[in-house]
Amino acid sequence: MHSIVYTTTSSKEEARKIARELVEGKLAACINIHEIDSVYSWEGNIEEEQEFALSVKTATSKIQQAIDRIKEMHSYELPAIITWKISGDKEYLKWISEMTD
Amino acid sequence: MHSIVYTTTSSKEEARKIARELVEGKLAACINIHEIDSVYSWEGNIEEEQEFALSVKTATSKIQQAIDRIKEMHSYELPAIITWKISGDKEYLKWISEMTD
Amino acid sequence: MHSIVYTTTSSKEEARKIARELVEGKLAACINIHEIDSVYSWEGNIEEEQEFALSVKTATSKIQQAIDRIKEMHSYELPAIITWKISGDKEYLKWISEMTD
Repeated sequence: MHSIVYTTTSSKEEARKIARELVEGKLAACINIHEIDSVYSWEGNIEEEQEFALSVKTATSKIQQAIDRIKEMHSYELPAIITWKISGDKEYLKWISEMTD
Repeated sequence: MHSIVYTTTSSKEEARKIARELVEGKLAACINIHEIDSVYSWEGNIEEEQEFALSVKTATSKIQQAIDRIKEMHSYELPAIITWKISGDKEYLKWISEMTD
Repeated sequence: MHSIVYTTTSSKEEARKIARELVEGKLAACINIHEIDSVYSWEGNIEEEQEFALSVKTATSKIQQAIDRIKEMHSYELPAIITWKISGDKEYLKWISEMTD
């Protein structure tokens, strides 16, 4: 079983740092980073910020470790971390399994 | 239970307007906007357009209201609106629940 | 039933070519392309590349054909191809079904 872990950071540098750490620690096979604008409510005000989103492809068995590692490294008090299960091309899913084993 | 609602708009202004309205109306906790190129079939031709994608993080119980509000505000006759269920970091999911309650 | 097929390419040209082919072949209703930075492990090294991501909206019954067509056209030895099931606005899902029938 495989999953996406999706999180956001305040800079591209932080996104790349987290991405490299997850791949080096075999908590992710591949990570895609893209620039976003975020709109959210914080302490009663609507805030808008430029951020960077990470889409982390990993084994479902590694999700909790990946979440814990992201929270340890992250500069935010409460980072946005969501996950969902994926399927896909069998050869590619096998590669994700190998890279995170 | 929590979900992503994903939709697209023709301008960044429209994306931001919908995002702010959903957050103000407690139909979303946080929205990420990014620029896309869309390729699709319309009346027999392949069309390509620049658009903006919104990834709306919300409670699953608010999905239908969020979809209805997006359709009311949207400039398109048939806006692309898709959803999928998410899991994630417990603290962050709790924050989504609180922001949409 | 409907799904996203998500894949990445090394250029925008390749992304657009695959997107047009899938839509023309009724293997997708609509495709959103955006620029990404990818971080992954390849033969023991951490690699970083600029790529383009395709989010392909289609009928779940067309996923395998879409995956096969992407693999035939793709310049990579092992393209990243993942999928997940979606729900959404009934009118829009009906349009996806019609465009891929």
